Parts: sequence; C-alpha cells; structure tokens
Amino acid sequence: MNVVKVGLLGLGTVGGGTVNVLTKNSSDISRRTGYQVVVSKASARDLSRLRICDTDDIQLTTNPEDVINDPEIQIVVELMGGEEPAKSLILAALAQGKHVVTANKALIANHGNELFAVAAKHNVTLAYEAAIAGGIPIVKAMREGLTANGIDWLAGIINGTGNFILTEMRDKGSAFADVLKEAQELGYAEADPEYDVEGIDAAHKLCILASLAFGMPLNLERVYTEGISKVTPLDVTYAEELGYRIKHLGIARRRNEGIEMRVHPTLIPEKRLIANVDGVMNAVVVKGNAVGSTLYYGAGAGAEATASAVIADIVDICRQLGNTSSNAVPALGFLDTELKDLPILSIEDVETAFYLRVPVEDKPGVMAAITSVLANNGISIEAVLQKESEHHGENTQVILLTNCVVEKSMVSALKEIELLDSTTGAATRIRVESLQ
Amino acid sequence: MNVVKVGLLGLGTVGGGTVNVLTKNSSDISRRTGYQVVVSKASARDLSRLRICDTDDIQLTTNPEDVINDPEIQIVVELMGGEEPAKSLILAALAQGKHVVTANKALIANHGNELFAVAAKHNVTLAYEAAIAGGIPIVKAMREGLTANGIDWLAGIINGTGNFILTEMRDKGSAFADVLKEAQELGYAEADPEYDVEGIDAAHKLCILASLAFGMPLNLERVYTEGISKVTPLDVTYAEELGYRIKHLGIARRRNEGIEMRVHPTLIPEKRLIANVDGVMNAVVVKGNAVGSTLYYGAGAGAEATASAVIADIVDICRQLGNTSSNAVPALGFLDTELKDLPILSIEDVETAFYLRVPVEDKPGVMAAITSVLANNGISIEAVLQKESEHHGENTQVILLTNCVVEKSMVSALKEIELLDSTTGAATRIRVESLQ
Repeated sequence: MNVVKVGLLGLGTVGGGTVNVLTKNSSDISRRTGYQVVVSKASARDLSRLRICDTDDIQLTTNPEDVINDPEIQIVVELMGGEEPAKSLILAALAQGKHVVTANKALIANHGNELFAVAAKHNVTLAYEAAIAGGIPIVKAMREGLTANGIDWLAGIINGTGNFILTEMRDKGSAFADVLKEAQELGYAEADPEYDVEGIDAAHKLCILASLAFGMPLNLERVYTEGISKVTPLDVTYAEELGYRIKHLGIARRRNEGIEMRVHPTLIPEKRLIANVDGVMNAVVVKGNAVGSTLYYGAGAGAEATASAVIADIVDICRQLGNTSSNAVPALGFLDTELKDLPILSIEDVETAFYLRVPVEDKPGVMAAITSVLANNGISIEAVLQKESEHHGENTQVILLTNCVVEKSMVSALKEIELLDSTTGAATRIRVESLQ
Repeated sequence: MNVVKVGLLGLGTVGGGTVNVLTKNSSDISRRTGYQVVVSKASARDLSRLRICDTDDIQLTTNPEDVINDPEIQIVVELMGGEEPAKSLILAALAQGKHVVTANKALIANHGNELFAVAAKHNVTLAYEAAIAGGIPIVKAMREGLTANGIDWLAGIINGTGNFILTEMRDKGSAFADVLKEAQELGYAEADPEYDVEGIDAAHKLCILASLAFGMPLNLERVYTEGISKVTPLDVTYAEELGYRIKHLGIARRRNEGIEMRVHPTLIPEKRLIANVDGVMNAVVVKGNAVGSTLYYGAGAGAEATASAVIADIVDICRQLGNTSSNAVPALGFLDTELKDLPILSIEDVETAFYLRVPVEDKPGVMAAITSVLANNGISIEAVLQKESEHHGENTQVILLTNCVVEKSMVSALKEIELLDSTTGAATRIRVESLQ
C-alpha cells in the first residue's frame, strides 16, 4: 500500500473532522484508491486546546512552517481560514512543489487568480472543493461532470446560516432579528453575523462558481451583494400567498451583454425543488445547455461534511501523483490560457422580475396611480395582491409581481411611486426568479 | 490543439445528441480540456434514416467493426443498447486497446464484471456515467466526490417513465393504466412498457449504484424488483392524507447482516426533497457517513442530457491519455482487487415500515382483530386511518402505518389478516422509508 503523508495547517472543526473521517473510513478509502492517507503533522495555535480528534499519531507544532518544510509531506491542507497567514503559507507550500488543499473560500475568492497561477507554475494542484457548499461535490460536478455543457446560469443556496434564518422566519412568522439571535444561540451564526447575513460569504462562493461556469478569472469585486437583514415576516407571508418562497440566492447568468453575478433575497416559485431546501442545508442548481437543470444538495458546513470534500481533493491529488503528462483538471475548469475576461454587468443592467410592496393610504385611485407609473416605465404586471385595511382611509399595502425589467427602470419607477401622494412609506422590492 | 478521434456505435437519439452537443459546445469543451473531440466515424443500421444531427463530417458505415478497427479512433462510444452485438463489439474494442464509453445499463448490469476485467487487462477505461440517471453526474459523485465516505444507504428515482406515471396519478387521480396510455402517447413510455413500469430498468441501475456504494461485484440477479402497476389511486390518496408520497425507488442499504438491494413502490414523507421530484426527472439521495445526506437531481433521459454524460466520460478519458501511471479511478470506484462479495439479504430479511390497506366489513371489532394479529407478530402501529362507509355493514378500508419490521413477519401477519372473517379482499402493502 502506498502511503501519502498529509500535513494540516489548522486543527479546529474541519481539521479535526478530517482526521476523524480519515481514521474511521481508512479501510474504504484505501480500497478505493490504493493509498493510505496519513496525517503525519499538524499545526495549531494552541496545543493545549481540547480537540475533537485523537492526535496521538500526529506530530503537533505551533509553527505552520514545520508542516510545510517537512520533506515527507506531499500534500498540505490549509484549514486555518482568513487571508493571512494562510495565503503566505500556501504560496510557500506551492513553491516547494507541494500540492495544497484548502477550504478557504475568502482566500480563493480574493486571491485565487494569483494562487492558481503560482500552483500552475510549480506544476502542482491547489484544490478547493471544500470552499463551496461544504460536502456537496459541486466543484467536481462543474469542472468534470458538466464539462460537455455551456452553462446558461446557476443559482445556489450557499450560506446555511442565511437559509436557516429564512426558513425559521417562514415556519414561525418571526422577525429577522429574533431568528438571528436564536441562530447565534444554536451556534449556527457567528457573534458577528455580517459575513453570513449580509451575503459576503455567499459572494465569495458565487464568484468562484461563476468562474467555473463561464471560464473567466475570479472577480469578487464585481459581485453585487445584498443581505437578508431587511426581509420582513410580512414579505415572507405575501410571497407565500403568491406561491413563492424567499431564499437568499447567489445567481450567475450568461447574457449576450455580459455576465450577471449577484447575491440577494429572491422570490422563487414554491414548486421548484430548491425552494424546498430548508434549514442549514445548501443546494446549487446548474442549468447546462445540454443537460438542462441539475441540482446538487447537501450539508454546506460541519466538521465531517466539509472533511468529506477535503479528503476527496486529497484522493484526487493522490491519483495524479506520478503522472508524467499534465492533463489534470485545471483550477477553474478551463485551461488557464483559455480564461477570458468577460464583461460583467452592473446590477442596474440586470434584468429580473420584481416583487413590490408599497405602503399606501386605503383610498380610491391608489392602484391606478401605481400601475400607471409602472406602465410609463415600460413595466408590466404579472399579479396583484391588494390588502384591505379594516377601515377606509387607513394605511394598507399594495403587493405586485412584475414581469422582467431592467433594474434601472425599476429604480426610477420606484422613485416616482414613492413620490405619489397616496404612498405612505418606502417601497420594498425583492427580485423574482423563475429558475427555469 | 490535440485532436481525439471518437467512433460511435449507434447514431439514434443519444448518438445524434452526442454529435450535436460536441458541435454546439466544441469551443467550451476545448477551452476546458485542451482537446478537440471529433466524431470521425459512426455505424448505424440504416444509413438512409433521418438523423437528428448533421453527419456531413462523419464517415458512416453499417458495419460497426469498421469503427472499432479504425486505427485513428482512440475512444469507441457504444450507443446501440441491448446485450448483443453491443457486448461483443465492446470486447473487441477493449482487446484492441481502445477506451470505451457506453450508456448501456442493461449491458453493464448483466456483464459489467466481465467487461471491467477485460478493460483492466488491456489497461483501458470502460466508462458508463450515461448508464445511470442520464445527465446527472452520479457515477462521478459516488466514485470521486464521496470517496471519503462509507456509504450507509442510497435511494433513487432512477426511471423517468415510472416517476411520470406516479406523478400524473397523484396530480389527476387517474388510474395506472390510463396514465400509462398517456405516457405512451407522449413518447415517455415504450410500446412494451415492462422494462420501465415493472422496475427492470431501475434494477439495472440500482445494481450498479449498490456496487459503487459498497465495493462489491455487480449482482443483478439479487436485486428484489417490484413494479408500480399495482399502485392504485386509492393508495396514492391515502398516502397523501398520511403526509406521504408514493415513489418508485431503487434502494441499497448496508446493514450488519448484509446488503439490501430492492426496487419497489415506497411511501416517503412529503417533506423530503426527493418526494418532490416529479414528472420524468430523476434524483438520487446518497447518505455518506461523513457528508450526511446528499441529493443529485436532473434529467434521467433525453438526447442531449444523456450526451452530457457520454461526453464527460470522453473528456475524463482524454485527460488520462498519455499518463504512464495507472491511478485512474477504478470502474466500480474500488480497486478491482478490493471488491468484496458481501452477503446480500433476501427480501424476506429486509426491514422496513409498511403502509397497509385492508378492505373490511364496516362492523364493530374489525380494528381490534387486525391490530391484535399485528401485535401477535411483533408489529407495532404508527398511524391508523379508518375510512367510514356510508352505511353500516358495507365494505370499507382500514389503513395502517406500521413501525419497522422484518418482511417475513409482515408476510405472515398479512396471511392471518386475510383469513379474518371481517376481511373482504386482498390486503395491499407498500413499504415505507423515512430516508433520514
């Protein structure tokens, strides 16, 4: 049996999970690969900390460079998170001709272009399946499984915390802030929840998925990002009445004019499979021009689910060890030389349908005023839900679903609507996707 | 650009789709792989037949051996279907050191053990992603994406025709025979529907999935197979009232005593994602001991969806061309030498919960009689639904959900129940799976 020695940078949740899964499944993994994958060395900040895994057979160190410089280690697994020192350590490992596996989405999204180029220069692999949607083999599906397809679009629930919050808001009718507190108590949300609920984490993942889909360099700064903190129980309920669910989606779409990359709350028809992905679970729909719609579902986080992806990457690298030709799957699924700087659309040029909720006085002519503003801006209406107030003259809500319209038309229509005499407050708008 | 020449055996739906997808996506495929995949020769029975693809650049022949013997062809794609002459042709191609891609599930399920051994002997690949669930990259997910996992169980909707029929029965309350006729008119079901509706096609696919999951040789003859032709609209409705959907599932499960492999109608909780996979779509849930539950969804058939999987296999082979080491992914995901003959349970030793429907006279003591028979056989009851008849003394139905019980206990309990005075006809039983 060939032994492959692996070094871990970081021995927290995912690191511990990786050690545990390699231990409990070592026989199945060897039967599949012909390799015995051994974690021989691991670095951690605090060696006295309680671990979720047994470390008896692992040489521990507080100095990550001990791991990288160990000549017996062929594969370095970076599970520290954050940009530095993770980036410098990965660069050092690649420069030594070591393969690297990482679960670090922020790092790949921010510095992937540079890191992949360095890996290619040294003819080694930098693998990152665990960086997107945890244990779901979505990178493999996109780089290899769907390789025959031009990708039309993809849409994913790629942040479990956000999906948990939206699911609880719907199931219990609770407000965002209350559910967030609950999620923090359950350990699903961080003390500083901004990364999750404002869509930053999802933007990291979306930017990688978009590059995989369309063969372009990573463009994190071009992802339009909108969080879920402004979604109200009222909108969740009205969406439901209209036959929709509100999900926090990352969406990438190829249009003639360019590529859309955006993260925002989205109404999707309740009949779609992805509308029924609840709680902390993740799912990605990928629409290929040959295969049609496919969906990949599973746990987006967790020690062993993420370890499942980390180890799959390790095994893929094992299978390449000793190969003389360099036909390995390229980092972003397209040959490095074939990545193209595609135009990326700004959000004002994105075309979607919209859900609108306008707080209005309950008096005659209100609906006519709103719909004529929309008509003047070239926006047609798909459905209307007018909520009656108890007493004439009180405040009420007009809820509308529009057809597809370019964002900037909607922005100017809403400005006009908010200036109407009958409008009593700021209008809410949430984009709508049919995902077909 | 490296050119790889491919020969097709069969130029029908999937063959035509493969040519069309290679043409329309040739640029993306080359950008991903560095290869230009060219179909240079194809065999078909009737050269005068109208094709769905352009064949101007393809040398056509009625003799499949012309394709196999062409020294320029490195990869032979078998899309004829059926056991012979497909099998002999594949063996001839493998013996010449050519890689083979096939979409032929009946062939792999029946003769895969022999074919994989011959491929290994000649150090070439026999790939079959398209044989299971069409365009869904499920073979890749199981062989590579989930390689870190011991697989606990898998459950799949792996026959689109059957799923279409069950979906229509639920949506329209129609009888099996009526929907089958409709499916035949729509071209979803063959004139001889036995393969699809009696579960034979699903058994082929399940047997391959089970070997991929557990690392054992293919064992088609040990798959328990039950079709959907006996499912009635009544059962569909009662299942619904109990919060379940009836789906035709292929299920493989690892138990201490051995492996379960079975295809049969199954009640599953309506909340499960797979319960909401409707129409002709396919989906497979795979439960790994690290990743948890994952689901893969997409089109299980169709020219271009199947071509998507065929071409992914071709590209995987291209990536291996010229590699000197032989670390390629093994045919069944485990090294050939590591496949184990695991004990396979007969259906009487399988443990599931059950849905029972017993036609009875509507008189006092009926429920007591049935439940005491169940209790005497060690079967406990999860839920009861007693339908009232209009008039006392008329026939009615007792519907029960039981807890998990070994099949043979249920068989003897049902014999006793059918002998009760109050029972007026044959009892219906459908297995129930929680899929958690």
